[in-house]
Amino acid sequence: LHESSLSADAVERGEFAHYMLKEIYEQPRAIADTLSERIVGDHVLQAAFGPMAAEILPAVQSVHIVACGTSYHAGLVARYYLEQGTRIPCTVEVASEYRYRDPVVLPGTLFLAISQSGETADTLAALREAKRLGYLATGAICNVPESSLVREADLVLMTRAGPEVGVASTKAFTTQLAALGLLGLAIAQAQLQDRRRIALFARQMLQVPEMVEHTLKLDGQIREWAKHFADKHHALFLGRGPSYPIALEGALKLKEISYIHAEAYPAGELKHGPLALVDDDMPVIAVAPNNALLEKLKSNLQEVRARGGKLFVFADPNTGLEEADGVEVITMPEHIEALQAPLVYTIPLQLLAYHVAVLKGTDVDQPRNLAKSVTVE
Amino acid sequence: LHESSLSADAVERGEFAHYMLKEIYEQPRAIADTLSERIVGDHVLQAAFGPMAAEILPAVQSVHIVACGTSYHAGLVARYYLEQGTRIPCTVEVASEYRYRDPVVLPGTLFLAISQSGETADTLAALREAKRLGYLATGAICNVPESSLVREADLVLMTRAGPEVGVASTKAFTTQLAALGLLGLAIAQAQLQDRRRIALFARQMLQVPEMVEHTLKLDGQIREWAKHFADKHHALFLGRGPSYPIALEGALKLKEISYIHAEAYPAGELKHGPLALVDDDMPVIAVAPNNALLEKLKSNLQEVRARGGKLFVFADPNTGLEEADGVEVITMPEHIEALQAPLVYTIPLQLLAYHVAVLKGTDVDQPRNLAKSVTVE
Repeated sequence: LHESSLSADAVERGEFAHYMLKEIYEQPRAIADTLSERIVGDHVLQAAFGPMAAEILPAVQSVHIVACGTSYHAGLVARYYLEQGTRIPCTVEVASEYRYRDPVVLPGTLFLAISQSGETADTLAALREAKRLGYLATGAICNVPESSLVREADLVLMTRAGPEVGVASTKAFTTQLAALGLLGLAIAQAQLQDRRRIALFARQMLQVPEMVEHTLKLDGQIREWAKHFADKHHALFLGRGPSYPIALEGALKLKEISYIHAEAYPAGELKHGPLALVDDDMPVIAVAPNNALLEKLKSNLQEVRARGGKLFVFADPNTGLEEADGVEVITMPEHIEALQAPLVYTIPLQLLAYHVAVLKGTDVDQPRNLAKSVTVE
Repeated sequence: LHESSLSADAVERGEFAHYMLKEIYEQPRAIADTLSERIVGDHVLQAAFGPMAAEILPAVQSVHIVACGTSYHAGLVARYYLEQGTRIPCTVEVASEYRYRDPVVLPGTLFLAISQSGETADTLAALREAKRLGYLATGAICNVPESSLVREADLVLMTRAGPEVGVASTKAFTTQLAALGLLGLAIAQAQLQDRRRIALFARQMLQVPEMVEHTLKLDGQIREWAKHFADKHHALFLGRGPSYPIALEGALKLKEISYIHAEAYPAGELKHGPLALVDDDMPVIAVAPNNALLEKLKSNLQEVRARGGKLFVFADPNTGLEEADGVEVITMPEHIEALQAPLVYTIPLQLLAYHVAVLKGTDVDQPRNLAKSVTVE
């Protein structure tokens, strides 16, 4: 196993106990940097995607996204940005699966790779494979300008997260989401879609750093919640729509650094199996930026509670959900729109995983068995 | 909660301790029934798909599959049948997610719902939603002829599993796979694709019942393995390609009836997070119909073993994998082709879940919190 990681000395932890916590707190700045100079007025600057953007973006008819781990979760959110936001069909696939699959490539399809390091072995191999498959073009969302992925892709949008030291990715993920939001807007713009809608989404994106800043203030409350998890061996994360990948990412963080077996499900699938697992050793965490999730969850709640299961909800204030026996609620900031929710709701899940890991005394920045960049297959 | 389930008296368990075991053993017959009279010579009978098949099948340019739970896993396998086998692009989605997503529907897209009961609330709602979205046509793979799904879909292929009483679906799943294989062949045939290839795949499909019969003889070995799992709280199932959905299905069975927190991963994702979880309380089960999975797994094995993790592999004899310290192997029947593997490799995972549940003393046929058909949302 070859571990590629930045020297811990190269970056200053400063006041923070761990790099991961520092990097969680850097997110308002990292997201703002990723957006700045790319949205000017209500307009996305095509040049941010490189010299070939003007040729490629107007021609995109569908997108195949390929990535691993946390970047794969960013891709799953991007599917909503592209398909719901821009009406461009989008599929998302794990790189190690994609590269052995021999996919059908329809005309006008953009291949898009997402990787923090730009050296993830499977993602890079997938990009190279894609070049032989008749794609319109290849693209990369990446955090390292000098990486192989950036050198080899036609279309590139850099995230500006800065060096990420913690093995569990945090700011790389949310800046990927910001970049993918920009990509959706840039395609919509290049294809002359409704300008008012594009302008609205651009403004919403620019509000995210401040929303993340507000959300970080929930840190104290989340640290209290962490006490409920430190002695647990399991956790179930629920979300729906674009919150399902956020639930996946929350579960992955908890797995990676606190070694709790956390799994995410789209909420509607609960009755199709995982409900059998819920008991007092398996708390259920719900990501609920709106009522659509809660309506279905409520019908499952009685069963969860009857088995001693406890529900923890990160809820929009408009859901009107109140704490009750077996239901704990943390109220998120107001007025978070669908485009913004994936970035904002990621924050409390990162903090939860962090505080649980600290309580458990694990090596937060260097979890067992894992490397920062998986540069071998 | 409205539980719809067949009366236990209506069906004879016979010599079997549980309906689930009976239904596992019925699979050679159920799969053969699902194929019989539909493949004649090397030809798939279009009429099996209903009167509109002759009009619809030649026009299919892509397929959207929508389902829940076990049927969703069947859909994930079908994606390989359709996209690799027939070169028809295919997406697969959980019904409760699909129906709120507002998907982009390209011209010539077939909407395909999969449900054992044909009354699964989210799947049925998705079908009704799809009818408003400009699809080429709607189709259903279903086990109950008088169901709503069958009445409302344009194209129908009935599985012939017979009544399934066990809440954890077994023969409904493998007959769905057989039906989906037939659908791939029927589309290929209707679109005048390579006849020799179609004939080859048709013959391979007809061999499956006998292969399943052989695989059932591994029951004794699998029952021995079950002893390693009965005291565990976690399990990780690994597969790749079309074996990944089989791993998902194996994990779901273990969850449903033995209440062990089992989770499936595509093998290549192991290093991107879940490897941190592996220890002596989390056995790793690998579905390995060929070497492609094992090559990558071997590089992860040392880490798994170093943490006390134990590997259980269902392996093709040609993988040449031998038992070693921390690696247990059950050798599957020889010469199982890619098309056949999903059906055949499902069998040992069903048996494993069954025997673990029996050892744990759970209510195998009526697991806690679950209903046979989820007819509420």
